[in-house]
Parts: sequence; structure tokens; C-alpha cells
Amino acid sequence: MEFDLIETIRVRTQGVRPDVVLGVGDDAALLDVPAGQRLVACTDTMVEGVHFLPGTAPGDLGWKSLAVNLSDLAAMGAEPAWALLALTLPTADARFVERFADGFAELARAHGVALVGGDTTQGPLSVTVTALGTLPIGESLPRAGACAGDAIFVTGTLGDAVGALRLLRSRGPGTGERNPPEVALRARLNRPEPRVAAGLALRALANACIDVSDGLLADLGHVCAASGVGAEIDMEALPFSAELRAAFDEAACREFALSGGDDYELCFTAPAQRQAEIEARLTNAGCRVTRIGCIVAGTSVRALDANGNAIATPHAGWEHFTP
Amino acid sequence: MEFDLIETIRVRTQGVRPDVVLGVGDDAALLDVPAGQRLVACTDTMVEGVHFLPGTAPGDLGWKSLAVNLSDLAAMGAEPAWALLALTLPTADARFVERFADGFAELARAHGVALVGGDTTQGPLSVTVTALGTLPIGESLPRAGACAGDAIFVTGTLGDAVGALRLLRSRGPGTGERNPPEVALRARLNRPEPRVAAGLALRALANACIDVSDGLLADLGHVCAASGVGAEIDMEALPFSAELRAAFDEAACREFALSGGDDYELCFTAPAQRQAEIEARLTNAGCRVTRIGCIVAGTSVRALDANGNAIATPHAGWEHFTP
Repeated sequence: MEFDLIETIRVRTQGVRPDVVLGVGDDAALLDVPAGQRLVACTDTMVEGVHFLPGTAPGDLGWKSLAVNLSDLAAMGAEPAWALLALTLPTADARFVERFADGFAELARAHGVALVGGDTTQGPLSVTVTALGTLPIGESLPRAGACAGDAIFVTGTLGDAVGALRLLRSRGPGTGERNPPEVALRARLNRPEPRVAAGLALRALANACIDVSDGLLADLGHVCAASGVGAEIDMEALPFSAELRAAFDEAACREFALSGGDDYELCFTAPAQRQAEIEARLTNAGCRVTRIGCIVAGTSVRALDANGNAIATPHAGWEHFTP
Repeated sequence: MEFDLIETIRVRTQGVRPDVVLGVGDDAALLDVPAGQRLVACTDTMVEGVHFLPGTAPGDLGWKSLAVNLSDLAAMGAEPAWALLALTLPTADARFVERFADGFAELARAHGVALVGGDTTQGPLSVTVTALGTLPIGESLPRAGACAGDAIFVTGTLGDAVGALRLLRSRGPGTGERNPPEVALRARLNRPEPRVAAGLALRALANACIDVSDGLLADLGHVCAASGVGAEIDMEALPFSAELRAAFDEAACREFALSGGDDYELCFTAPAQRQAEIEARLTNAGCRVTRIGCIVAGTSVRALDANGNAIATPHAGWEHFTP
């Protein structure tokens, strides 16, 4: 039952890893974790209508279901290795499966990830991916390492995915497809690039790290809660893409960045005096980086204007529901 | 968002494993795979209305979602270690979550499994569990090792879960709850005991192994296909529980065993001369074992009557759909 889709992806990612002793097709996969390395594991589910719009292209869904998990591995500084995929589909749709497999395999190959197991079931459309990676013993980028005095950095730009979603919802699907800024924003929503190279570059350099999936306020809040510190964000410093600025005013850009989510950028803290080294390493990793604030004593995450005054912020990031 | 349920289970399984360097609450878990061991990984999804009846007790669902994965690890001869849980729920139902956590944690504790990650999302009810275990390098129970001449064995009894389902469907839920045979059958449907100890006992003893989740014909068929052999099943030898025999005639018992599924027993092959050793080791592991046939040259799986004549069998095991 589960072999067709899983097999379709397996053949597209085969040969990428000699450490797969036994992959798809047995009761479980057998994998070699290299000596001196720890296993890093995470899982994430995407449900139609909750995490993606009905009508999302299957290839984008395949890509993104893996990307959000590789982003979690990146936020630990891990190197991705293997993935398991559970896809639930309403009907047996060969065309859907083929395109889903294309998108999943394209990102998997780009990061040397082998699909080693999975399950295909009938039901309302949803995807759960488990990603497995490795990390040298003694190295990691935990949430709990932020220290008062650290500078706060973020990779790439914030708010693009929510900007794309806003445009899609206001104009409907099929519109804006020839408008280059919208196409660029939509790519950020549908095919986020997990910051794996940045995570590797930050090993033994950042004190704390998280990926921005629920909005900067919520995710930086997780870092602060885990580390027992507070944070001040310099609102003037937040990095926005030219495309986002072209489509929205400053207030909207800031709202998307603070509480939008779906960015899959890394937010990390490090001693301020290491800024030059951080910029050099991340430029080397092909990744823009911006200093956006500092870690302070206390427990609150505050946004400051150009004069250093706190400004009102939306309460929290993107929450589906809390059981 | 994901912390409540996952945290509820984590506290119920904490302290079971010193090899969890960093568990629930960061971007990903950090785990120590012991030197000399391989990682074993599998994933399985259960969707309401497809894999379990609407109205299934949340505690049973929590138990079973882990059990079906531990059964896959058992079929490889692996020792379970860690699990990741993705639960999708229509509404935030604290009572459901609490009971689900109870059932999941009860089985996890029994097998020394720590919950190390997860995701809770809103949507139609389904559960995906990823189970991770370990296995000494060089040992495993693959599907592909069956040899012509091997005897075929099965643990426990077959058909109980489908028998329970048949009774439930014919009589409706809430009936038969005080009828001891039905209670026993229902326990086999709702809280299957993964054959972990049996899998460990069979290391370096069985040539091939699979867990019976889709019915004996389908699963033994997978072993034969992977091994390039055929099989003959002695229909007189199939092991049935006293409860199943009390509720159904012989023909129904056989149908359930051959094509029912949901048994989560191990079916394995080994040289016939090792039968006494197998029986001794599995008795020691608290597990009944029955010799039910032999591996032959060819490609077909045939069921034989008392006179050695092939009898007609239903075509295949339980299939949801094939995308």
C-alpha cells in the first residue's frame, strides 16, 4: 500500500547516502549514525486549510513539508541526513503523487537527504515528515543559551510569506502570477529555503538559536523563556525584502515580521563582539544576516522605535489552537 | 502550540532514558545512539474512519498509535528507544488529550520509550508516530532472508482483532462489554502488545521476519517477494485464541487470519532444525509460537488443507487504497 509514493520518492533520492543500510521496503530502516555524532530528530505536520491553502500545488507541498523540518534541524546546527514521510490523501491521485514526489525529492537532493521510510494513507489531506540529522557531540544551538548582553541576529528577510498569503487572500488564486514582486513573495511562502548552511556556520558561534516559524515575537519569546532573559528588538533594523516593501507599507511589514510566521529564517543570539565573524561566515554560507536587537535582563520581549521607546506590539505569534 | 499534549506525555515518560541529551521543547531532540549500534526508524499513520472506528477511546488510540510502530521495530529485532508524535485533533479537547497521553505513556513506559518530540495541529483526527530504536551492527531481521526449506512460524494468535471488529460492527459499540470473550478480543484490537521481546529473542536465529499488520497472506507475501521464494501454509496449524473460536466458526477464523490484519504478531522463517531453540527462547520471552508452514521454491503463497491440497484463498490482505 505504502510503496508507490514512497518508492517514487526513494528512486529520486537514491544513492545520496551510503549510510542507509536498509531503506524503504522493510518494516523499518537501518541507518548508520557516524561515530562522534549525535542523532537530531524532529517532526512537523501540515494540514490542508490550516497550514496551507486548499489548491496549493502538490510540488510546493512536497517541498515545504520537508523544508519546515530541515529548518528545525538547521536551528540546532545539525546536518540533515534522512527523512520519513507520512502522507494522507483523500483519493488515489497519481498526478498529485508524482508532483508531490518531485517537490519533496528536489529539496531532499539539494540537502543530501534520503527518504528511508513512510506511510501513505487515505483521509483528509495532510503531511507529516520526520527529519533526522547529525551533530558532533558537544555542539548544538539550543534555545536556552541566550545571555544578557548578547546581540540578536536574524538571517534573510522577514514577513515575505505572510505578505504573499495576504495578497493571495485579497486577490484570490491565479492572480498576480505575472507580477514579479508577487511571484517572489509567493516563492517564499511555497518553497522556503531552510537555512541549513547558516546553521552549520553558526556552530560554536551562536549562544542560542531558533527558526522563525510562528513570528519573531513568539519565537524570540521561546528563546527568552528557555534562557531566562528578555529581549529588545530595534524595529528600524528589521530586514524586509524589496518585494515586501513594494507591496506593503512599513506598518504592515512590521506586523508580518513580528507576528506573521512561516519565515523559516534563523533567529540567534551571540556576543556582540563576534558580529564581524558572524557576518563573514554567513556571507560565506550565502546568507544575509541582520543585527536586530539585544538580549537584556528580565523576561519580556519589547519592540523599540528609533528613539528607544517601547511600542505596542501584537500579543503573540501564529497559534492554531492549544489543546 | 505543540507543548501541551507533548509535554503531558513527556512528564509521564521522563527519566526513562539517560540517552536523551535534549528532548521536547527545543527545535529538535538530541539523542545518543550507543557505539556499535545502528539506528532503526519507522513511521505509521492512523486516520479516523480508516484505521480506527469513530468513537474509539482516546487512551486506546494513544496506546495503539505507538504499538503499531513498536511492532515494526520488533519485526527488525530492534530495541525501542525514542518516539515522536504528531497528533491532529478537530478541537482542543483537554479530556481527550489527557486520556490519549495516558494510553501512549503507559505503553511507552512499559518499553522504556521516551517521547522526544512532536507536533499538535488542528484538523481531522489522525495520529502519526515515528519510532526510533537501536540494533547491534550486523544483526537484523530483514524481510529478504527467507530460504527454501525454512519453517514458517507465527507468534501468539491470529484473527482476534478482526473478530473484535466484526462483532463491534454487527452489534454496535457499547454492546458485549460484559461478555468476557468479546472483552478479550476487543483488547487485542484496541491495545495490541507489540512483540518486542520476541523480536529481541529472534536476533541471529530467524532468517526473515515481518509483523502481521495486513493479514498473513499479504505479509508473508512481502517476505516471499523480498526473498524470491514461495510459501505453503498449513491451514490446520493456524493458531486461534479460545475466544475467537468461541465466537466464530473455523472458516471465519481462517479468513480473519489470512486476510484480516491488525494482528501485530511476528511471522518469521528459520531453519526447521532450530524449532526447539525457537520455542524455548520465545517461551522465555513470554510468547506463544506456532509452526505454520514452510518456505518453498517458487513465488506463490499457498494455503494447504489437511491432505496437503491447495485451497482457494482470498486474494490479498487489507488495503486502504493505492495511490
